[in-house]
Amino acid sequence: MTTSHKTTKRKPDEKRALTSRLKRIEGQVRGIQNMVENDRYCTDIIIQISAINAALKQVGFSLLEQHANHCMKNAIESGEGEESLKELIQVIKQYAK
Amino acid sequence: MTTSHKTTKRKPDEKRALTSRLKRIEGQVRGIQNMVENDRYCTDIIIQISAINAALKQVGFSLLEQHANHCMKNAIESGEGEESLKELIQVIKQYAK
Amino acid sequence: MTTSHKTTKRKPDEKRALTSRLKRIEGQVRGIQNMVENDRYCTDIIIQISAINAALKQVGFSLLEQHANHCMKNAIESGEGEESLKELIQVIKQYAK
Amino acid sequence: MTTSHKTTKRKPDEKRALTSRLKRIEGQVRGIQNMVENDRYCTDIIIQISAINAALKQVGFSLLEQHANHCMKNAIESGEGEESLKELIQVIKQYAK
Repeated sequence: MTTSHKTTKRKPDEKRALTSRLKRIEGQVRGIQNMVENDRYCTDIIIQISAINAALKQVGFSLLEQHANHCMKNAIESGEGEESLKELIQVIKQYAK
Repeated sequence: MTTSHKTTKRKPDEKRALTSRLKRIEGQVRGIQNMVENDRYCTDIIIQISAINAALKQVGFSLLEQHANHCMKNAIESGEGEESLKELIQVIKQYAK
Repeated sequence: MTTSHKTTKRKPDEKRALTSRLKRIEGQVRGIQNMVENDRYCTDIIIQISAINAALKQVGFSLLEQHANHCMKNAIESGEGEESLKELIQVIKQYAK
Repeated sequence: MTTSHKTTKRKPDEKRALTSRLKRIEGQVRGIQNMVENDRYCTDIIIQISAINAALKQVGFSLLEQHANHCMKNAIESGEGEESLKELIQVIKQYAK
């Protein structure tokens, strides 16, 4: 799937919320680097990885919700709902596979 | 699942390989922060998130393999194979749920 | 999530295609029962289970596509696109969790 | 991954428990066929599919546990623990991908 040139105008508070969650996830990834560095037990690291995956999934769901509430709503109102739906289904197939 | 106090002595090249993959993942997470900041299109960000999840999963599999080849092999040789197996199954249940 | 009382009028060929895929999946589940009965090796059965999960996921994606192309398209045209989108996001969260 | 010719001698109660869970899953798959036949709403069917996937996953975990407790324990005791571990990791990679 190629990257589109569309943009999504986000509200400042949505941006802040997403950014703070992503910063926390970035910190968790650095935490795993330390665990590797300090010879921490494999399975402890694996559990941490599944926690990061869960956190990223939540960010994905939030983006999906914002996408539905803003982008797709606009698309529907301007008569491009069908195309917008096709795109969404493609993304979900990629995301949930 | 509580964190154990066991450690895993990793070889320098294994450490380097894991660290370099985790650094790339950390960069990808920062990349998503920029995408949010720059109002990039929601679905483009979602696709990136699923790429990070896939990369993290691969790191998890590598750790699992190292765990089997080192920690569990040692546990088996020192007669603690059974306990080690129980632990592995717990981790997999958590990881694959 | 409670079951709705809405219905989805499916075309005969869509119905046939879904039914034949579900019948095959039903046969695969029975096949696993035979494998258990005949003391087949655990990991062979586990691999079969992941094949069934993949097949079910494909049916889920097909239903999602039909849902977007029929139900949601109709909802959008009759001005209920927004509610229909909310519902979709709920389903995806449940499905992809 | 090719099918092995190994077998797993299961206890009658383990067999019964697995078989009864698989029969329930088979019934759920038939239930979905009825839902398709009766034009039930797409998203209701999709939710049912994710319930079946969850149930199948639980069967997979049970088999994994039995595999660890019986087959792998035996393999370890007869000095084939290492090969048995390799096989397990392969299965998990396939199962959790």
